[in-house]
Amino acid sequence: MTAKPQSSLLSPLQTARQLAAEFALTAVERDERGGTPKAERDALRDSGLLALSIPGRYGGLGASWSETLQVVREFAKVDSSIAHVFGFHHLMLATVRLFARAEQWQPWFEQTARQNWFWGNALNPLDTRTVVKNLGGWREFSGKKSFCSGASDSQMLIASAVDESAGGKLLIAAIPSGRSGITLHNDWNNIGQRQTDSGSATFERVRVEESELLLDPGPLSTPFACLRPLIAQLTFTHMFLGIAEGAFAEARQYTLNETRPWHKSSARDVREDPYVLAHYGEFWVALEGIRLLVERAAALLDAAWAKGPTLSAEERGHVATAIATAKVAASRQGLNICSRLFEVTGARSTHASLRLDRHWRNLRTQTLHDPLDYKLHELGDWALNQALPVPTFYS
Amino acid sequence: MTAKPQSSLLSPLQTARQLAAEFALTAVERDERGGTPKAERDALRDSGLLALSIPGRYGGLGASWSETLQVVREFAKVDSSIAHVFGFHHLMLATVRLFARAEQWQPWFEQTARQNWFWGNALNPLDTRTVVKNLGGWREFSGKKSFCSGASDSQMLIASAVDESAGGKLLIAAIPSGRSGITLHNDWNNIGQRQTDSGSATFERVRVEESELLLDPGPLSTPFACLRPLIAQLTFTHMFLGIAEGAFAEARQYTLNETRPWHKSSARDVREDPYVLAHYGEFWVALEGIRLLVERAAALLDAAWAKGPTLSAEERGHVATAIATAKVAASRQGLNICSRLFEVTGARSTHASLRLDRHWRNLRTQTLHDPLDYKLHELGDWALNQALPVPTFYS
Amino acid sequence: MTAKPQSSLLSPLQTARQLAAEFALTAVERDERGGTPKAERDALRDSGLLALSIPGRYGGLGASWSETLQVVREFAKVDSSIAHVFGFHHLMLATVRLFARAEQWQPWFEQTARQNWFWGNALNPLDTRTVVKNLGGWREFSGKKSFCSGASDSQMLIASAVDESAGGKLLIAAIPSGRSGITLHNDWNNIGQRQTDSGSATFERVRVEESELLLDPGPLSTPFACLRPLIAQLTFTHMFLGIAEGAFAEARQYTLNETRPWHKSSARDVREDPYVLAHYGEFWVALEGIRLLVERAAALLDAAWAKGPTLSAEERGHVATAIATAKVAASRQGLNICSRLFEVTGARSTHASLRLDRHWRNLRTQTLHDPLDYKLHELGDWALNQALPVPTFYS
Amino acid sequence: MTAKPQSSLLSPLQTARQLAAEFALTAVERDERGGTPKAERDALRDSGLLALSIPGRYGGLGASWSETLQVVREFAKVDSSIAHVFGFHHLMLATVRLFARAEQWQPWFEQTARQNWFWGNALNPLDTRTVVKNLGGWREFSGKKSFCSGASDSQMLIASAVDESAGGKLLIAAIPSGRSGITLHNDWNNIGQRQTDSGSATFERVRVEESELLLDPGPLSTPFACLRPLIAQLTFTHMFLGIAEGAFAEARQYTLNETRPWHKSSARDVREDPYVLAHYGEFWVALEGIRLLVERAAALLDAAWAKGPTLSAEERGHVATAIATAKVAASRQGLNICSRLFEVTGARSTHASLRLDRHWRNLRTQTLHDPLDYKLHELGDWALNQALPVPTFYS
Repeated sequence: MTAKPQSSLLSPLQTARQLAAEFALTAVERDERGGTPKAERDALRDSGLLALSIPGRYGGLGASWSETLQVVREFAKVDSSIAHVFGFHHLMLATVRLFARAEQWQPWFEQTARQNWFWGNALNPLDTRTVVKNLGGWREFSGKKSFCSGASDSQMLIASAVDESAGGKLLIAAIPSGRSGITLHNDWNNIGQRQTDSGSATFERVRVEESELLLDPGPLSTPFACLRPLIAQLTFTHMFLGIAEGAFAEARQYTLNETRPWHKSSARDVREDPYVLAHYGEFWVALEGIRLLVERAAALLDAAWAKGPTLSAEERGHVATAIATAKVAASRQGLNICSRLFEVTGARSTHASLRLDRHWRNLRTQTLHDPLDYKLHELGDWALNQALPVPTFYS
Repeated sequence: MTAKPQSSLLSPLQTARQLAAEFALTAVERDERGGTPKAERDALRDSGLLALSIPGRYGGLGASWSETLQVVREFAKVDSSIAHVFGFHHLMLATVRLFARAEQWQPWFEQTARQNWFWGNALNPLDTRTVVKNLGGWREFSGKKSFCSGASDSQMLIASAVDESAGGKLLIAAIPSGRSGITLHNDWNNIGQRQTDSGSATFERVRVEESELLLDPGPLSTPFACLRPLIAQLTFTHMFLGIAEGAFAEARQYTLNETRPWHKSSARDVREDPYVLAHYGEFWVALEGIRLLVERAAALLDAAWAKGPTLSAEERGHVATAIATAKVAASRQGLNICSRLFEVTGARSTHASLRLDRHWRNLRTQTLHDPLDYKLHELGDWALNQALPVPTFYS
Repeated sequence: MTAKPQSSLLSPLQTARQLAAEFALTAVERDERGGTPKAERDALRDSGLLALSIPGRYGGLGASWSETLQVVREFAKVDSSIAHVFGFHHLMLATVRLFARAEQWQPWFEQTARQNWFWGNALNPLDTRTVVKNLGGWREFSGKKSFCSGASDSQMLIASAVDESAGGKLLIAAIPSGRSGITLHNDWNNIGQRQTDSGSATFERVRVEESELLLDPGPLSTPFACLRPLIAQLTFTHMFLGIAEGAFAEARQYTLNETRPWHKSSARDVREDPYVLAHYGEFWVALEGIRLLVERAAALLDAAWAKGPTLSAEERGHVATAIATAKVAASRQGLNICSRLFEVTGARSTHASLRLDRHWRNLRTQTLHDPLDYKLHELGDWALNQALPVPTFYS
Repeated sequence: MTAKPQSSLLSPLQTARQLAAEFALTAVERDERGGTPKAERDALRDSGLLALSIPGRYGGLGASWSETLQVVREFAKVDSSIAHVFGFHHLMLATVRLFARAEQWQPWFEQTARQNWFWGNALNPLDTRTVVKNLGGWREFSGKKSFCSGASDSQMLIASAVDESAGGKLLIAAIPSGRSGITLHNDWNNIGQRQTDSGSATFERVRVEESELLLDPGPLSTPFACLRPLIAQLTFTHMFLGIAEGAFAEARQYTLNETRPWHKSSARDVREDPYVLAHYGEFWVALEGIRLLVERAAALLDAAWAKGPTLSAEERGHVATAIATAKVAASRQGLNICSRLFEVTGARSTHASLRLDRHWRNLRTQTLHDPLDYKLHELGDWALNQALPVPTFYS
């Protein structure tokens, strides 16, 4: 990290931990409520962390991806919805950085840092209902879009549309969220990630200027540009790990403070019950494995990012397999921990006031972003055939 | 089944399926709402199924345990809360049948059949906060009690209290739910089994007559009386199976009707995707295994029940291991199916309107009734040492 | 079972158990040695069990498939090579029964029963190296063949060849093993199933008479004829179950007699170690599940067999799914037990004199006959799409 | 690494890889044969690698533990028996370094480096049959000892005996293997690790000098001395990882060169079969996780070793949990890979000439050294209670 906010003596990670501690106080209630976490989003704005991944020369905190994603993980321990929109905000910044010209992204970076803009997502390559019309000097985006995480209460949106006149080519633009013609439906009401606002949007003849289109070098155009989906995947992976760590920590506190040994246990204290200890031992082994895989992947991403446009396809491919590996492990082991933890907390821990199921619901929801089976397919192709993943928006 | 209601041409199972179809229409909404499923409880009353396990000579439908629990399983496919209170109602009837004198239970059976009484639970052997005071001609129960499933909106309660003057002996009584001094707190608000009313109760100097005490032969007094906890365990197991079957059926409909193959799939239709098929294949193997274990256990219970007081401890022990085996398999495999099903339905299936997570929440909650680890311990003692389970309220 | 040997007062199952007890004495040594278990094959001949599945009217013992396969399972508990060749012998008899005319199989049945013929296998539909030449009145089989289980020391062989003049059609014949031109290479030396003689054969212009060809109704020609691969699959499944049961039994004896608790165990006797008990509990749950799946599948096969030529494709399909389900469960759970059992027997149980690894080696070898992944694919097609398996030599 | 042999331009790891390539040529044959790998042990002597962990100032190669264990892992990929005795040799050197005075171990180190001594093991704290008698100026060791890995063909032995006059205190000595009274029985014949010579020994009034006793600081006397069991555990863990990596590599070559797709596969080449790829993907995720856990543990051991006698109990405890975590993961995932690999190589890969089962046999044998269940117990105590492992010879 090359720069720190002058206004604060805290490191970004310390700031994040302070915020996380506050978010934790209302996480259960907000999981029940759903909707937009307006106060928390504003706290993020005030914290300066929206400039976390922006280089110092554009007014940001200059954090590496490891550092940025470490903050995502911290948030995910207590509130994976916040982690999601925060991580996606930085993913959107990476999107303009990687797909557009410096003359485009530099001012966006500067304004984001100066005005604490929050960026949201309206890019969904598999949802082709939004189309583009070329009107000479500008374009018009029209149609629907689903899974627009973090679009509500944002200043800027990354939006995509299909250019049918160009054989279905995907056009991506960065536009102000308040532009005329954009309607966000606030219709996200899912079993998990309940405050991510991942609902639908409608674009009605939304004017998009040429200068807002991310055409040069354009989406997935170079190995370096192809880091964008990897940042997305690794953001998820940090969320998965954070959720699992948060679930473990909450289960542990509950076991220590509330759980009694079964009347048939040889132990007088649940802390000595052989089966309870075996579960915790297995959780530990799983968590440690995920932690190392995630941290290794983040270090590789940092190194690849540092190479910039000189990054080769092969180098990018190795980052991709490291991230996919971490993602598979975090998904599977995380789900296992989030479901099994009740076996070490016991029947009373199902009380709704704890919403201890939210860890499983959040992880279950987010791990469905793209299918694990095809990540394994990809990794198998690497392990058996030494074939590195072909870049897509999911690989 | 030795008798059928003259007023109906439907078998009890057909009646149950009709009711289940109706319950299914509102199951999602009621899972959200929680509270007492009053309309559904009344529909159960009207159906005559509250007399299902009562022998024909006392006005009941004379169903075997297999038949009764098959109805529990049918209900659990669509609504495991209804399955729970319905199963517990019959468990309460079994409790008076097994622990009390014929002069006691026969009138209770007759009135239950005639007046469609619903029985609820206030027996919790591990919760020793309710104590009994002997006042000569009668007793007084005072204290608190947790996990009183189905007590709300019931006519009769099975309640327990600790007799400290008799070394902490457990006294069990059957009393009208409306008796003075009983307060049901309607405070059940848990992540699953949300309409079971498994909240807490307070007993304030509740008068219990001698004729209401289940003293002869008394709790767990004979091998036959020791079938009571086995009926409880097997009721749970039928619920677990029913939940898993319902989850599978709902996932299947969703996959067939809504899910699209991943863009990298070799299949054009999700029905042919190799990984989707592999998941369904694994679900099938798991379900078939549970089904056979559950049905075998139910048949053994029927045979043991038919032996009545001549049942030996060893015969009872073999029923116990069969039920424990089915329970472990249903718990583990069921949880696996309820969590993994999302991998064959996809991201959109997390929409809250489906509440497709309720299967996992219901199963996760109910499988914590007593720890799986100690069921495995028990089975290990049988498998290794040929030691049959020592009867307790959980074994 | 409609007939029993006059010369014996023992039931076939009792006879099998006596034989199994003898085979057990040398199983370890013979696993090391490999080769043909000549003495044991002769003992099988002498026992009359080679006529087990042959109806009484042809001089056999008239056992059902359930009964026949129960004997396979008994043998597999102590020696899965013997179980294999014994099971295949009856599979060969089923092959002629199902694929040939009564005038063909009746004399073969009679002679088998009278002379205690042992049948071996040289049918391998995926090995197309043996071709047939039509010489007018007879045919000539020439080429190589792998995996000819039980061919050594047999009287009769079921052999297949590809008729290239008929578009690669598979021709199957029953021929005396000693016929001129047949060479069995006795080259089976594999990690498991070491006394099955599943080596290669060479056919050099082997003359095959028209009356030896199984043409009417021919291979897989009717739903009834399509029971043949199901009998093969269910024979394997009984072997898998028997191996797992034998491994469990041997592990149990070892634990009880030899294993000491770990010095950190809370138990003084290994029989009370909580982790040892948990392992045994899990083994028990797995075994019970397999047992019921296998027994259900066998009962369905009996019923389908009893229908004879009236068996419908759909009825046959349901038998197929039941067998595939049992096979998947027995393969996976069996391998798990055979590998994990060492964790309850301990380091000393790896001594080569016990060859306690042979259960895993035998099961590992035999479960590779056809891939489990494609059985799951098949079951998924049933579970999701209600599509019954299309009959092949493996389905 | 601070010093390298002048006689060689190869790094120790390069030397090890050359040796491993040679060992690989005969590994299958030697697995079958068992016994002492005399030629390979001599090649190790000639290579200079027996001085690998010895500091340069005593004539050794000065490798860190990471580097030393990396060589163990390289050997384990092709021959885990060689890896075992090589790793134990360095463990024995660590034993004298940690338990004895510098005046003792320095000459032993120097002579080992100069004369390429091979050290073997006769220390088994749970085998209390060898007792010590104090004869004034010297002691006598008498009794039996099991699991004496690498004792045959060694120059020096670490031997233990119980001092009954001192309350059963364990005395450990370093003595020449050829000393009068020592008989090595060459009776190791187990299912795996077949060339480790882990058989039994008899001590008949073996004279042990005071200067040969490791009394100062003595066994497990300080946190630093307590690194000894951790080096043992981490040596095993490197063996487990190496075995799994070797198994994966051999399976991969087989699949690529020999395996054909199943006739029902959608793929024409097995390299594209969806299920084969999924298996390889899962193997990869497992291997990557183990690799990182193992490498992290080795780095922690290096750091702890560097602290020397200043190492605190808490610091030592954290190394212990990292090693235990790696060990559990490597044991479980490794066994899974070694058993499942056959599903991607197919039926023909069971041919005994490949002995592809040796990876499972080796890993199965060695993972039983001390029970995994109690490692999990230990890790659970850490994860739940923040209690670091109490040092023993196994923790």
